[in-house]
Amino acid sequence: MTIPIVMDVDTGVDDACALLLAACHPGLDLRAVTCVGGNTVVDDVVRNTLTVLDVAGRADVPVARGAARPLLEEPVDARHVHGDDGMGDLGWEFSSRQPDERHAVELLRDLFLAAATDGEPITLVPTAPMTNVALLLRTYPQAAQGISRIVFMGGAARHGNATASAEFNVFHDPEAAAIVLDAAAELGIPVTMYGLDVFYEPVITRAEAERLVASGGHGPAELAGALIAFQCDRFGAPSATIGDAGAVCAVLDPQGLQCVSMPVRVELAGTWSRGRTIADARDWAGDLAHDPHGKAPATIEVALGVDARRYADLWLHSVHG
Amino acid sequence: MTIPIVMDVDTGVDDACALLLAACHPGLDLRAVTCVGGNTVVDDVVRNTLTVLDVAGRADVPVARGAARPLLEEPVDARHVHGDDGMGDLGWEFSSRQPDERHAVELLRDLFLAAATDGEPITLVPTAPMTNVALLLRTYPQAAQGISRIVFMGGAARHGNATASAEFNVFHDPEAAAIVLDAAAELGIPVTMYGLDVFYEPVITRAEAERLVASGGHGPAELAGALIAFQCDRFGAPSATIGDAGAVCAVLDPQGLQCVSMPVRVELAGTWSRGRTIADARDWAGDLAHDPHGKAPATIEVALGVDARRYADLWLHSVHG
Amino acid sequence: MTIPIVMDVDTGVDDACALLLAACHPGLDLRAVTCVGGNTVVDDVVRNTLTVLDVAGRADVPVARGAARPLLEEPVDARHVHGDDGMGDLGWEFSSRQPDERHAVELLRDLFLAAATDGEPITLVPTAPMTNVALLLRTYPQAAQGISRIVFMGGAARHGNATASAEFNVFHDPEAAAIVLDAAAELGIPVTMYGLDVFYEPVITRAEAERLVASGGHGPAELAGALIAFQCDRFGAPSATIGDAGAVCAVLDPQGLQCVSMPVRVELAGTWSRGRTIADARDWAGDLAHDPHGKAPATIEVALGVDARRYADLWLHSVHG
Amino acid sequence: MTIPIVMDVDTGVDDACALLLAACHPGLDLRAVTCVGGNTVVDDVVRNTLTVLDVAGRADVPVARGAARPLLEEPVDARHVHGDDGMGDLGWEFSSRQPDERHAVELLRDLFLAAATDGEPITLVPTAPMTNVALLLRTYPQAAQGISRIVFMGGAARHGNATASAEFNVFHDPEAAAIVLDAAAELGIPVTMYGLDVFYEPVITRAEAERLVASGGHGPAELAGALIAFQCDRFGAPSATIGDAGAVCAVLDPQGLQCVSMPVRVELAGTWSRGRTIADARDWAGDLAHDPHGKAPATIEVALGVDARRYADLWLHSVHG
Ligand SMILES: [Ca+2]
Ligand SMILES: [Ca+2]
Ligand SMILES: [Ca+2]
Ligand SMILES: [Ca+2]
Repeated sequence: MTIPIVMDVDTGVDDACALLLAACHPGLDLRAVTCVGGNTVVDDVVRNTLTVLDVAGRADVPVARGAARPLLEEPVDARHVHGDDGMGDLGWEFSSRQPDERHAVELLRDLFLAAATDGEPITLVPTAPMTNVALLLRTYPQAAQGISRIVFMGGAARHGNATASAEFNVFHDPEAAAIVLDAAAELGIPVTMYGLDVFYEPVITRAEAERLVASGGHGPAELAGALIAFQCDRFGAPSATIGDAGAVCAVLDPQGLQCVSMPVRVELAGTWSRGRTIADARDWAGDLAHDPHGKAPATIEVALGVDARRYADLWLHSVHG
Repeated sequence: MTIPIVMDVDTGVDDACALLLAACHPGLDLRAVTCVGGNTVVDDVVRNTLTVLDVAGRADVPVARGAARPLLEEPVDARHVHGDDGMGDLGWEFSSRQPDERHAVELLRDLFLAAATDGEPITLVPTAPMTNVALLLRTYPQAAQGISRIVFMGGAARHGNATASAEFNVFHDPEAAAIVLDAAAELGIPVTMYGLDVFYEPVITRAEAERLVASGGHGPAELAGALIAFQCDRFGAPSATIGDAGAVCAVLDPQGLQCVSMPVRVELAGTWSRGRTIADARDWAGDLAHDPHGKAPATIEVALGVDARRYADLWLHSVHG
Repeated sequence: MTIPIVMDVDTGVDDACALLLAACHPGLDLRAVTCVGGNTVVDDVVRNTLTVLDVAGRADVPVARGAARPLLEEPVDARHVHGDDGMGDLGWEFSSRQPDERHAVELLRDLFLAAATDGEPITLVPTAPMTNVALLLRTYPQAAQGISRIVFMGGAARHGNATASAEFNVFHDPEAAAIVLDAAAELGIPVTMYGLDVFYEPVITRAEAERLVASGGHGPAELAGALIAFQCDRFGAPSATIGDAGAVCAVLDPQGLQCVSMPVRVELAGTWSRGRTIADARDWAGDLAHDPHGKAPATIEVALGVDARRYADLWLHSVHG
Repeated sequence: MTIPIVMDVDTGVDDACALLLAACHPGLDLRAVTCVGGNTVVDDVVRNTLTVLDVAGRADVPVARGAARPLLEEPVDARHVHGDDGMGDLGWEFSSRQPDERHAVELLRDLFLAAATDGEPITLVPTAPMTNVALLLRTYPQAAQGISRIVFMGGAARHGNATASAEFNVFHDPEAAAIVLDAAAELGIPVTMYGLDVFYEPVITRAEAERLVASGGHGPAELAGALIAFQCDRFGAPSATIGDAGAVCAVLDPQGLQCVSMPVRVELAGTWSRGRTIADARDWAGDLAHDPHGKAPATIEVALGVDARRYADLWLHSVHG
């Protein structure tokens, strides 16, 4: 019994790792991938995404171009992290496949409406700023009926990375994240936040990466290894996180993740707090009547712990084929 | 030589006044009307809009349903101003016409892309929270090439009405207004803000309204008169503003409006300032190097004065037929 | 019948103009002057203030040093406006008089408590960031009983100068201004805001300034003329505002000022609105029940118009002696 | 070798526990206690504080009345936590001693200036909203030279209690807390934050409380026990935190506390974040050049772990006499 999923990405080195897992694992039925500007410009995201899927032998998966920029924030440039081409400057040949003619929002709408009709709702896994998802849910809220749940990489219950308060994906389009949480609460979509409290933990060593590379043949294992090795080089570290791929692991293996159900809001204002995901750890069964804010509308699953080796191994074995 | 226009409305008593002018005046070519939740719920907006167009003999104009709610703000209820049906509870028979099958955002996209191809860009006149326009410009920015300019009812250079700082349309979807200004600056769309500095000035007296009603025949004049009379009754006043219709006058007769070109931003945060349109009256040719904010990206035409009688007469004569 | 006043200043070219008027006009009984960091550093403010009072023959007026910096904002440097010495770099010999031993807050407290006991409350005229006044009212709220009213230079009902939204004095210590308005409402102190809506209007021509300078003798007229001439030079203009001195005129001649009573708040947050004085022009006798903010606690007199020539003449004749 | 300390309190059940420890422990030289409105109104705080000190046989310690209200926030009422009299409604006879004639700010100034002269700086322990401390540091910054460090109860690195983001003491006067951190950085005062990450951990059981009560004689042990028992009753719990007393333990026994040095800011704005203490857990030795906020000016010791039993025992043995 496979799980149908759609990914929304800004490929991106670790989105590539996530795509390889989603494309290769037999337990997932990857229906489509939508692209958004984030780690790099959206046209490069599309190209990188098509390339990764081709390498994984999944030229059948439709890829659609989405929003080129966040709703309100200025676009950012993360080439210092992801390389000039957004995918590690590995020198692999890029795919010449064309993306789907539809805008990402329309492709998502069509898939989810069909899934609703078929009674087989799909898991949506955004590993990028959630601009596309926000535009979808505000333009076509009825699409929610075809979404079984959203597992997104982003946010943090404790500490940020883009700022002391905020995590990158949410910081780069805070309004989009706020819309997604708000719409999910309104439309009844379960949400899991795979954020910084777990993100950096599942790691692959350089030795493991080199074994992947050694498998050769320009297949998914070689690409996966090269991506990890790139990160080890870039940060001068003996291992690198699988990053966004952890959110795909969370779909495949929820038992490997320790989640707590918490009311969560996205702070959009504030001098130092914009883009923070405020996870409310208090006991609302107790007396919180003096809180002037009241309980946040969206209660979601917040990942606070992960069996890091288990997720790293899941990824490693899956991409090794 | 007629001016092609599209309206985006939340009909609404004064949106109805604006639609009657746009539908009846020979100088305008009303290509479509898109609907958004605002003064009343979006389904009632669609019904009211179809009804007004039918009364005006313009069943040819496509009407599309758009966003049911703002991007982030809670939907509001202005039935205390516009009546239970959103259009004055006049008891007129509602249209049974069906709206266009497309979502408002798609209808707008199709029209503007076609206009761009034809080299005949269209004037967009939003008289409601700008949710639809924001979704359009962020999903399909290329549509901007088919927009000759945006003349919107909303905002205020001096004082608000929803709050001391903010005008209703902007206050009810501040992120949408901010996106529209930002995208207009980025995509090169000229913008005119027809806001509270002029909005209340063009008025129709009760006597004038009664003469319109007396023309009878369930035509646009009778409806126009009934709408003004409703407002006189509701506020116990001897006259009522043509409201949103002034923005249509601004398209037809720009000489009747005194505008000043000013950098404008929408404040989204602030304890008391959310939804304010900050119109910068300072001389940026002088030395403003000490301003920590810098000049706003969007410089737009802000209506600060209006020849009120001229606009009232323009409306009166147009709807009288 | 003279009016007892205390000034709180950041001398500053136009504070000097204000001090000359307050020191020389027989209708005012200048009891003390307190100093705060603002246009220049507080030690220079003290020295400049003592110098101006000495020139005016008022070495009897106690001067106290107050806050060196705003409550939360970083101190600013306005030497580009006021000259390196904060008072036009005129080369006049500085006073060698020592300030009062007490901190400004204690001097103000002592004066106001004595005035309360004597039944002769004093008018407080701040023409600088209101740090001292805020510290006073929060540390010694009982001092309010000795304050007949506060007439401050600062704020704006329409447009800012430090930013599009905010006026300099309020922008440089917004928390202080907010505390003063809040405390004034709580403690029953009437407040008049002499802000940017009138500030720039009363002007002195270069020719008038030169006639003042020609009176010679190192007296107040010569200094007054030199200060105006400095400003004309600095801005390459044929005339210069009397600036802060207008707030002293407002005490002497309230009939020359058109004020409207309005609820006013200071915005402390906001991306673009920090330091704005929000003057609420709406009719609270009407139905504003839908305003989520409610009416501001402080209703104050906001100067919206000034008989500019009348105030300029009042200043001119007073400093001419 | 005793440590000279001054406490600033809003007594308050747990401030009373803290005062008992500070008054009774031979390792501390309690020089004065200043009072601020918080848990209850300031006049009751003064009365409660005098009463606790009298019970502890410390009528020699001067007590001064300070700010009745926060800088900008509305005063709060925490009688639902602390009882109608603010100290558990225990029915103990209140002290008839008069407080010091000086305002709290002046008493603090005098003590710290004297300590600076003597070369024996004092530890300041605020366990309440920091209004008094903020007024002190902005009015008399030179007092900082007599402060060896500030150990305050307040804030949170992880989660709030007043709101999901903010801890009570900071939430009730956020501007004061921000001023204290800012001034501490500017004036070189070391700061330790004893906040919610440790606050609730050192607890006393009901049985232990009853043994304290049984010691009788209307002495500190009996009062201490009654205060703990009150809290057990109020919350229906088998034990109660020593609360503010933990901050005094932190002075006496720093080895019992696990602190991490972190840049910390207080968020004053934000829709949901006002009053949050933002503790930055990132490694600023790494590359954080892309953070638009930069490093916070104040780097302080943040208590993240506590040897709870050790602190509870320290308190228990000290108040038992
Ligand atoms: Ca990503
Ligand atoms: Ca409307
Ligand atoms: Ca000044
Ligand atoms: Ca306390």
